Amino acid sequence: MIVRKNIDVTAEDVIIEDAEGVKKRVLISEADGAPNFIMRQFTIAPEGHTPYHKHSWEHEVYVLSGTGEARTGENVVRLSPGNVVLVLPDEEHNFTNTGKEPLNFLCIIPG
Amino acid sequence: MIVRKNIDVTAEDVIIEDAEGVKKRVLISEADGAPNFIMRQFTIAPEGHTPYHKHSWEHEVYVLSGTGEARTGENVVRLSPGNVVLVLPDEEHNFTNTGKEPLNFLCIIPG
Repeated sequence: MIVRKNIDVTAEDVIIEDAEGVKKRVLISEADGAPNFIMRQFTIAPEGHTPYHKHSWEHEVYVLSGTGEARTGENVVRLSPGNVVLVLPDEEHNFTNTGKEPLNFLCIIPG
Repeated sequence: MIVRKNIDVTAEDVIIEDAEGVKKRVLISEADGAPNFIMRQFTIAPEGHTPYHKHSWEHEVYVLSGTGEARTGENVVRLSPGNVVLVLPDEEHNFTNTGKEPLNFLCIIPG
């Protein structure tokens, strides 16, 4: 059993095209022996966003704090704590912080 | 993209041997088209606990609110919001609420 605290994990800047103000903590990964999926925590600064993109794997997201939006095509959904989002494989998507506080969410992916 | 709120999902009583005061919300599952893993939220009432047991699949847990303990063998670890727990396949474990508020955590499993 591995137990740790999210704030004890280093938050790395996400430096990819069209990402702004995004940090990532890898909370549980293959390095811990996790056999099937990886738990990450993202923190998006006010006015920041993840890139609008797609990929072959899904996201399962849980919003911890802050407010924002998830977008796919013309579908924009407001997010607040307790919202969950399933982004299916190959579905275009991004996440934007629309509030004044950091937007924190978990994002689990296969791996 | 599927978006919902945790509190809009029905909380079902977990009625299995040695579970006490445990409710479960299935937040994202195969029924939504999730291809690899299932996100559940557990709520354990004060003095409640999950069974001490093991199974062939892993848990990835994120503590949302409340306080409690995770146990495997003689290893007991205190839990509070922001703690993550990886329970490996076939590792004995349980979760107990040691506080006065409900203990809420996400528990993701393959499926």
